[in-house]
Amino acid sequence: MAENVDGDALTSEVVRSFSSTSDERLRQILTSLTTHLHAFVVDVAPSIEEWEQAVDFLSRTGQACTDVRQEFILLSDVLGVSMLVETLNGQETPEATDSTVLGPFHMVESPARELGDDISPESEGPRCVVSGRIRAVDGTPIPNAAIDIWQADTKGFYDVQQPAIQSVGNGRALLRSDAEGRFHFRSVIPMHYPIPTDGPVGELLKATSRHPYRPAHIHFLVTAPGFRELTTHIFIAGSDYIDSDAVFAVKGSLVKDFVQEQDGQEAERYGVPSPFRHGHFDIVLHPES
Amino acid sequence: MAENVDGDALTSEVVRSFSSTSDERLRQILTSLTTHLHAFVVDVAPSIEEWEQAVDFLSRTGQACTDVRQEFILLSDVLGVSMLVETLNGQETPEATDSTVLGPFHMVESPARELGDDISPESEGPRCVVSGRIRAVDGTPIPNAAIDIWQADTKGFYDVQQPAIQSVGNGRALLRSDAEGRFHFRSVIPMHYPIPTDGPVGELLKATSRHPYRPAHIHFLVTAPGFRELTTHIFIAGSDYIDSDAVFAVKGSLVKDFVQEQDGQEAERYGVPSPFRHGHFDIVLHPES
Repeated sequence: MAENVDGDALTSEVVRSFSSTSDERLRQILTSLTTHLHAFVVDVAPSIEEWEQAVDFLSRTGQACTDVRQEFILLSDVLGVSMLVETLNGQETPEATDSTVLGPFHMVESPARELGDDISPESEGPRCVVSGRIRAVDGTPIPNAAIDIWQADTKGFYDVQQPAIQSVGNGRALLRSDAEGRFHFRSVIPMHYPIPTDGPVGELLKATSRHPYRPAHIHFLVTAPGFRELTTHIFIAGSDYIDSDAVFAVKGSLVKDFVQEQDGQEAERYGVPSPFRHGHFDIVLHPES
Repeated sequence: MAENVDGDALTSEVVRSFSSTSDERLRQILTSLTTHLHAFVVDVAPSIEEWEQAVDFLSRTGQACTDVRQEFILLSDVLGVSMLVETLNGQETPEATDSTVLGPFHMVESPARELGDDISPESEGPRCVVSGRIRAVDGTPIPNAAIDIWQADTKGFYDVQQPAIQSVGNGRALLRSDAEGRFHFRSVIPMHYPIPTDGPVGELLKATSRHPYRPAHIHFLVTAPGFRELTTHIFIAGSDYIDSDAVFAVKGSLVKDFVQEQDGQEAERYGVPSPFRHGHFDIVLHPES
């Protein structure tokens, strides 16, 4: 027992209580958690009422989780923790494409489609084209890379959010890069959208005068044998909220211009009416360590 | 957006996102939370799988909460956070009686009883006596103080845990100190008991080879006009786990000997068979600030 309980003695006592943990990594994590958590509590010195409010908030966050909703991931997102974990795992190099968060909508298998297909056939709005090339950091093209793509529609909704309106798979595709590592597809330019605000995380955003919006983006998850898997988005330049993403996932290198293409031959080549907007995204993968 | 996302830039960005919070205290708490939480994440650099495990653990902790169970309080308890918050709020002085955690069993109103009553009439086992005096730090006795008492039985169970065996109110009492500030009651000496281990907190204890036991104790919550409310326990000296309380609530000053009383006149005075065990607890209250 801590004879004269002050914060330091109590913190040491809790750390010691974990000293018999056989899993060394778990012991390391709990030691760090105890130290940082106690430092936070000492720093803010919560009243009993504030501590009760925190317990209530965390309990309700857990209770808001369902098969199709993960409120604790959302909390991690709006506190920047998801992005921090992603960044720490990215071990990024200037040569490779930046990673960003997976997000909560990678929840169904994307339908296999052919290069050039319209991946949002049920979505209204003018078609855009996205094209690029998958290559290694040394410049070598990577053929037959698996490119998993998912996005919201022109109103900001994913297929799974509108089961009565969109079929599952609309706005999604699993493509393969060609022999030169190239890919291209047709789609619509997605709109910015709010993260769910009807739970405890929404209360937090409201209480702190933060908006719930994510700027317009298209998700990519790229895998190829011998290379590190890449989870990222491209953000549509000029989108609302590009400088204030509610989940802190924007990196400057991932913001892409969707330029207005006036060349009728280009439109014909991609099978879209002229003019159209065209985004380009070269994806550079890191060799597996 | 953080152009070159490293931990520091991201942490600053998240802190800035809370800068419009109108409630200054909430802004202070969230700024501190973000800083300490990010420092923890950077320190342990969790893998994506570890982050997912943490999300799952917290979600299940919330989902384990019901009307009669608060798993997040239990998590706060076993991480020493509840005791830290209690200590920070106690603003203790050497002259006043130490406080400790309220615990999860103060959930029903204690029945009013008379001084000298048996507060555990349905419990098996030999009777003990607890007596003492309520006084101010300057030594003045405090008459008519409200003394709320609750305890487990000789098998380690509270009334509310055994609705088929114990009536609600067994092991509980609301007493009033007499004109000289004195109180006494009869009861049984409670046993040590485990906190609930069938939820996520139990998994944590198991994974870290920690036992779930609390040493034997009797709860007190004392209020008197003009004095600061005191939430505390007395711990029965010699109880198992007195040096390793699962919730870190033991303070040396609160460990009390229950001495074997051989004097037959004392037994008669308290209305118990001789010999009996007698615990003494003087309670010193702080004036309201």
